[in-house]
Amino acid sequence: MKVYLFLILLFCSGLCLSQKKKIIRKADFPTEFRMISDDILSKGKAYEQLRELTKKIGPRFSGSSNLTKAEDWAVQKLKESGATQVWKQAVPVKVWNRGKESLEIKIGNNSWKKINMTALGGSEGTAGQDLVGEILLVKNIEEFNKLNFADIKDKIIFFNVPFDQKIVNPVETYLEVGKYRWAIPANVSRRGAKAIITRSLTSAFDDVPHTGSMSYDTDDNNKIPALAIGAKSADELEEALKNKQKIIAKLNTTSTFGETKTNFNIIGEIPGNKDNNIIVVAAHLDSWDISEGAHDNGAGVVHCLEVLRAFKNLDIQNNHTIRVVLFTNEENGVTGGEVYAQQVKKKEEKHLFAIESDAGGFSPRGISLDMIPERRRQVFEWKSYFLPYGVYDFDQTYSGQDIQPLKKLDIPLAELVPDTQRYFDIHHTSEDTFDKVNRRELLLGAVTMAQIVYIIDKNW
Amino acid sequence: MKVYLFLILLFCSGLCLSQKKKIIRKADFPTEFRMISDDILSKGKAYEQLRELTKKIGPRFSGSSNLTKAEDWAVQKLKESGATQVWKQAVPVKVWNRGKESLEIKIGNNSWKKINMTALGGSEGTAGQDLVGEILLVKNIEEFNKLNFADIKDKIIFFNVPFDQKIVNPVETYLEVGKYRWAIPANVSRRGAKAIITRSLTSAFDDVPHTGSMSYDTDDNNKIPALAIGAKSADELEEALKNKQKIIAKLNTTSTFGETKTNFNIIGEIPGNKDNNIIVVAAHLDSWDISEGAHDNGAGVVHCLEVLRAFKNLDIQNNHTIRVVLFTNEENGVTGGEVYAQQVKKKEEKHLFAIESDAGGFSPRGISLDMIPERRRQVFEWKSYFLPYGVYDFDQTYSGQDIQPLKKLDIPLAELVPDTQRYFDIHHTSEDTFDKVNRRELLLGAVTMAQIVYIIDKNW
Repeated sequence: MKVYLFLILLFCSGLCLSQKKKIIRKADFPTEFRMISDDILSKGKAYEQLRELTKKIGPRFSGSSNLTKAEDWAVQKLKESGATQVWKQAVPVKVWNRGKESLEIKIGNNSWKKINMTALGGSEGTAGQDLVGEILLVKNIEEFNKLNFADIKDKIIFFNVPFDQKIVNPVETYLEVGKYRWAIPANVSRRGAKAIITRSLTSAFDDVPHTGSMSYDTDDNNKIPALAIGAKSADELEEALKNKQKIIAKLNTTSTFGETKTNFNIIGEIPGNKDNNIIVVAAHLDSWDISEGAHDNGAGVVHCLEVLRAFKNLDIQNNHTIRVVLFTNEENGVTGGEVYAQQVKKKEEKHLFAIESDAGGFSPRGISLDMIPERRRQVFEWKSYFLPYGVYDFDQTYSGQDIQPLKKLDIPLAELVPDTQRYFDIHHTSEDTFDKVNRRELLLGAVTMAQIVYIIDKNW
Repeated sequence: MKVYLFLILLFCSGLCLSQKKKIIRKADFPTEFRMISDDILSKGKAYEQLRELTKKIGPRFSGSSNLTKAEDWAVQKLKESGATQVWKQAVPVKVWNRGKESLEIKIGNNSWKKINMTALGGSEGTAGQDLVGEILLVKNIEEFNKLNFADIKDKIIFFNVPFDQKIVNPVETYLEVGKYRWAIPANVSRRGAKAIITRSLTSAFDDVPHTGSMSYDTDDNNKIPALAIGAKSADELEEALKNKQKIIAKLNTTSTFGETKTNFNIIGEIPGNKDNNIIVVAAHLDSWDISEGAHDNGAGVVHCLEVLRAFKNLDIQNNHTIRVVLFTNEENGVTGGEVYAQQVKKKEEKHLFAIESDAGGFSPRGISLDMIPERRRQVFEWKSYFLPYGVYDFDQTYSGQDIQPLKKLDIPLAELVPDTQRYFDIHHTSEDTFDKVNRRELLLGAVTMAQIVYIIDKNW
């Protein structure tokens, strides 16, 4: 009697299990998308994981002890999320230490006034000495290029180039105005100026300074400090300069370059049931030194963990290997992305697709597709499945910074496109904190990531 | 010579002006939508106006001196925004004063513990006396309806019905679970309970209590107090009750009903160039007493002002009258909406369309259309014009609370649909503050409002 009962129970539980798997296996994408969404919205751990990463660990700058802590945390979380294999991939990172930094200005005969500032990442410092010079406002790079050596010599060049508020998607104006951070300082440095002050890359009009990477030409023997000030300070400074007032700036920073250290890409995967071809789900674990990195890119990290967790929890029988790669050193070097791509090439691993989440934890609105037209068209055919989740925009053509090195291996790339309006208010600042992230928006981003990975796993 | 120069200048300025108007007048909607967007995103005043309304005035509850201040402010802002005629429409509002309120609970033999709470708007008070009773957890209204009189008598009924996290659009779960605030208390009151405690209507799991309107049956002679507690407190309370612990609650409130007072719908318009048919752009000026009402509905108010300002600034020659109506008493009576509709009927004013913004100042995602299929189809044809602004969802079929009374006059109605994920975290709480509003998201909502008004003005 007992044996019969046991057999009946076994049969029933087998039925339930096989039914669950069956639903997942047949190509009823609306139903399967709904199951993924239900699971993540009701059982998702992304928000609590993000709280840990930002509040227990905090800033995770390349070469810092915090980033090492975050690496250990990520190994643990990947295992908890269901990765059956987790490993660390060594990556050399150039170390830059901010040290102390201050900026003061003196307008005419007024007394010195402190200005909120942040050195750009990778900037030369002043070795703790005061660097003093007159500020020269230059409207844009075209105007700068017309100046003579005598105009520039010993001046502190100040570019106050704001975001174009009229552009609906702030990413577009960031990519345009961004050159004043990542490219133009090298140009200014070669031409005899003493330092460069830039307006922070922001949609806001507050006084929060934004850092970000910059670099010099390798043959530049007279590298000068480069820093950013908040939009409000920038506008006030421009106003004072327009009133023909002579303004002197005093900059003092103790930033230094250190020895190259080793950080790690943290990788975890669920092997494929059909083959070992790989689908990469990516984000970067590092952040700027001055920031908790909640949106940039803690949100991306927990999106990736959530994809694995949902696949495991729903017992999705993935055809291909689903591999999460949490890259290191995205903010100031992208050596994590480069090392990963080199290893893919060396090991001749076949990658079917790679998607990164590196634009914040806001409500998802689309998926940017950086791939050949034939692949784009295939994704376009699935648009209607995403619409109930507020995801409608498949027209963008960029992809994540860390997975970009995979492009030369002809791998179809993508990036999650969340709502972008709030992102550049906090990007690369001390304001990019956990409280700026909304739980449901964060989870919905993970839903989109899991859904696109799911449908590609079933079709490619 | 001087006369010639003058004539030439006059001719040129005439050319420029007529060119500007010509661009506006021909039906090149993509270009005209862009002009509206450019104007609002670069010159919009909505954000600074919202700062004034929330920070200088603050809560604007029906019958309060603050709402009177807000009425004066709105008259002034409508004039500044370009309304050529501004007037106040008297509306009777029932007055409810919250007074002081507190809730304590006692679990088993433990000491009394204070719980964050808010009375629901319109609730009876305890006249400053302690109301003490045992808490009875009831899972839902179906379970409640099965209880006997003896089960209920002298109990404090506690419904802990959470939002369904799996529903992507929180508006849908709000409309479903919302009955535990706006309908069920009346039912419980008639059946002999002492008081009702509800779980706040929220997507969040924090401890912020949310108020909102409730009402009793008119023939209920034993009206009982109704209040809400935060989600966290609700879950803790349920947990304790599930452990079979007897829990006593002590409620003390001094809320009172006052005399009916007069508030005003504040109305301002730009007359039509072709006729006096009216397009209404609406929001409500009142808020809850415990809230700055930044998203609900300060955002809507400044959206409306922005539409007028942009029309005026762009010198749009509107065919029909563009009328902003800032309704009063939406939160606890909707008498503003009723009076307005009565006057429309009485004066036989022809209304072509009415749109309300009352779902917050988040990024716009759509326009909800509450109108006959023929009109819906016409709007559908314009979808592609809205897409570059992130507005893609035209599938919803509800409209704003204040303009609802216009429905029986067969007027096509609509409501702006912003992103909804953050809204119910702060709705009707002390947390609905100016700092929760993003400047660009707010302005983009105004862009959508102005664009739909513009295209309807040109086509209907």
